[in-house]
Amino acid sequence: MSAAVSPHDTEQPLVLREDRDGIATLTLNRPKARNALSMGLMAALQDVLDAIHEDRSVRAVVLAGAGGVFCAGHDLKEMRASPSREIYEALFTQCSRLMLTINRIRQPVIAKVRGVATAAGCQLVATCDLAYCEDGARFATPGVNIGLFCSTPMVALTRAVGRKAAMEMLLLGDLIDAEEAARIGLVNRAVPADQLDRLVDGVAAKIASKSPLTLATGKEAFYRQIDLDAEAAYAYAARVMTENMMAQDAAEGIDAFLGKRAPVWCGR
Amino acid sequence: MSAAVSPHDTEQPLVLREDRDGIATLTLNRPKARNALSMGLMAALQDVLDAIHEDRSVRAVVLAGAGGVFCAGHDLKEMRASPSREIYEALFTQCSRLMLTINRIRQPVIAKVRGVATAAGCQLVATCDLAYCEDGARFATPGVNIGLFCSTPMVALTRAVGRKAAMEMLLLGDLIDAEEAARIGLVNRAVPADQLDRLVDGVAAKIASKSPLTLATGKEAFYRQIDLDAEAAYAYAARVMTENMMAQDAAEGIDAFLGKRAPVWCGR
Amino acid sequence: MSAAVSPHDTEQPLVLREDRDGIATLTLNRPKARNALSMGLMAALQDVLDAIHEDRSVRAVVLAGAGGVFCAGHDLKEMRASPSREIYEALFTQCSRLMLTINRIRQPVIAKVRGVATAAGCQLVATCDLAYCEDGARFATPGVNIGLFCSTPMVALTRAVGRKAAMEMLLLGDLIDAEEAARIGLVNRAVPADQLDRLVDGVAAKIASKSPLTLATGKEAFYRQIDLDAEAAYAYAARVMTENMMAQDAAEGIDAFLGKRAPVWCGR
Repeated sequence: MSAAVSPHDTEQPLVLREDRDGIATLTLNRPKARNALSMGLMAALQDVLDAIHEDRSVRAVVLAGAGGVFCAGHDLKEMRASPSREIYEALFTQCSRLMLTINRIRQPVIAKVRGVATAAGCQLVATCDLAYCEDGARFATPGVNIGLFCSTPMVALTRAVGRKAAMEMLLLGDLIDAEEAARIGLVNRAVPADQLDRLVDGVAAKIASKSPLTLATGKEAFYRQIDLDAEAAYAYAARVMTENMMAQDAAEGIDAFLGKRAPVWCGR
Repeated sequence: MSAAVSPHDTEQPLVLREDRDGIATLTLNRPKARNALSMGLMAALQDVLDAIHEDRSVRAVVLAGAGGVFCAGHDLKEMRASPSREIYEALFTQCSRLMLTINRIRQPVIAKVRGVATAAGCQLVATCDLAYCEDGARFATPGVNIGLFCSTPMVALTRAVGRKAAMEMLLLGDLIDAEEAARIGLVNRAVPADQLDRLVDGVAAKIASKSPLTLATGKEAFYRQIDLDAEAAYAYAARVMTENMMAQDAAEGIDAFLGKRAPVWCGR
Repeated sequence: MSAAVSPHDTEQPLVLREDRDGIATLTLNRPKARNALSMGLMAALQDVLDAIHEDRSVRAVVLAGAGGVFCAGHDLKEMRASPSREIYEALFTQCSRLMLTINRIRQPVIAKVRGVATAAGCQLVATCDLAYCEDGARFATPGVNIGLFCSTPMVALTRAVGRKAAMEMLLLGDLIDAEEAARIGLVNRAVPADQLDRLVDGVAAKIASKSPLTLATGKEAFYRQIDLDAEAAYAYAARVMTENMMAQDAAEGIDAFLGKRAPVWCGR
């Protein structure tokens, strides 16, 4: 959440995209509003994620925030300016669709967190496939403090961390520090601020070196099998692995491994 | 579980209730039986929880045990005195309903644990929305030691902690210490014994300062969304947030936040 | 996964079984192939597990690997030698059935891990009811490195550890060390190499001292209730506990406990 006045940000793109070596870095770009998720920013992020899903040149996505902050949640000023059920419903539906899209695009999405990630910003972190943060980062689901429980962020939070930890964040609304976030599993790791870029660059580059077909296959299977019971999950996953084994990239990868050489992926 | 003779506790209430500043503190009060959950005690706790659910003056609940022990589980002596399938079925159904009630009442329920919490007593801890303990507290699901696997406690335990940790507790039946309980997520935190009251008082007071409508909305949504798949969970949670935004307390909370003043909740 | 040539291992049993004091120790026995799960080895393990399920003399199972390695996953050489959809489908179906069998047999299964456990070998660890390792053990789901995402290992991995930790292992394919494996919940504990046998012996002996009926009841209930919603899980578990209370071993166990003597189990 952010109390900042919505800037006249029509001149600046709300989401910056920079592509290099198969890695698309997306930067939430409303720093004066602490990158609050206005409807405009969510629409812009949705568009760029939809485009990346179709863009075979992209193998990994990094999501960051401009100005030393990750994301302060929804834009409260914007929300209070239009107090109608229809608009709220559209807003939360848009936001939920955005979160599901992060899990549905072909490429892994890595959150790189500096500063605070609160409310729907914390939800973004919980939603991303991987998350790394600087050791000064802080996280909260503080909706309870303003009478608006973080119910949609809760969907992502409760799937990332244990119940007691999630409930404490949701009921108290307090900021937790980076070490605690790593301990409970909200982020993969917290590192000193000056090491964060190198860590995330390394993770993204490693992912980008894999077969994009294999990554897309695995990511889709991850979220599809996780809500099934064990027997159904195995029946599904066994089919996925069979298809995967029939792909050229699996043959190439295994032959390269057995032959002690580097694989060359064709993406099929 | 407790081997103690059931005391003649008809003169003392089986559950003590003390209300202060919107916080209801419930104390399991069979200290000579290590607060074992006799059918009488479970009925008393069910009644008080049902009453609290309807009592808008209560905003948070603390659950504790009398006499330096949290709860030693079911009353084995009572159980063995009536060895009939009907009575056992009634007993476990009553107990399961009690646990579900803790998650269903409007107010968050905080376990404050001193001494041991075993079997159905450990289940109470796993079930409460939040749990804090003294550093000398210990936890176990020891039914396996007496030929009676902790199958109903397992329902709560496996939803609070990871599978390997839960299985170890259930198969070995050993006591684990407070530090381990915090590490695996059975409790939120363990603190020195002389700091436990202050910690729990602070948590309860903080929760009691929030909008009771928001707390009730969020708690209900927490347990409803958690068993849904992600897409269904988001569809549900988006509706919950839309309704929440239409409430007076959300408007008040957001306006107070934007105006940098303290909110005044009306509970609607 | 293993690149080793499949040894002519028809002379040696692919799975060694040693029974002592109610504990069956199973050793994957293709050390030259790093105990890779050839179809032959999987069939042998399936047979022995099916036999153990019916063998009331066995109360606990320990699963280990020969030659200082736990298991390097599927036998890639064998797989590439028969590149047909039918064979792959049969292979992954066989493997999935094997994993489900570990969770379905009456007796608890304990993984004792030395050296590496990778791909389907890591899946075995995630699948076992309990897992202990030497502090030099290492774990990975490295399929992504060879174009074959660890989709079936993922089913077990994502049910044992949190999402962020699982995703990192799956997307990066890196080895994690024993300490990390314990931290994320993939194993129960890591100990110095010279203490592992004693630790696992102690755990297995403790389990073997319990009522086998109670263990079988509890293990079955564990996996049955875990995919249900809370209300359905309680309805089911309350029935299980009622049946359990009607068993002779529960009466014996409770009476022994109340009488402060050791129970004598009849297994009924």
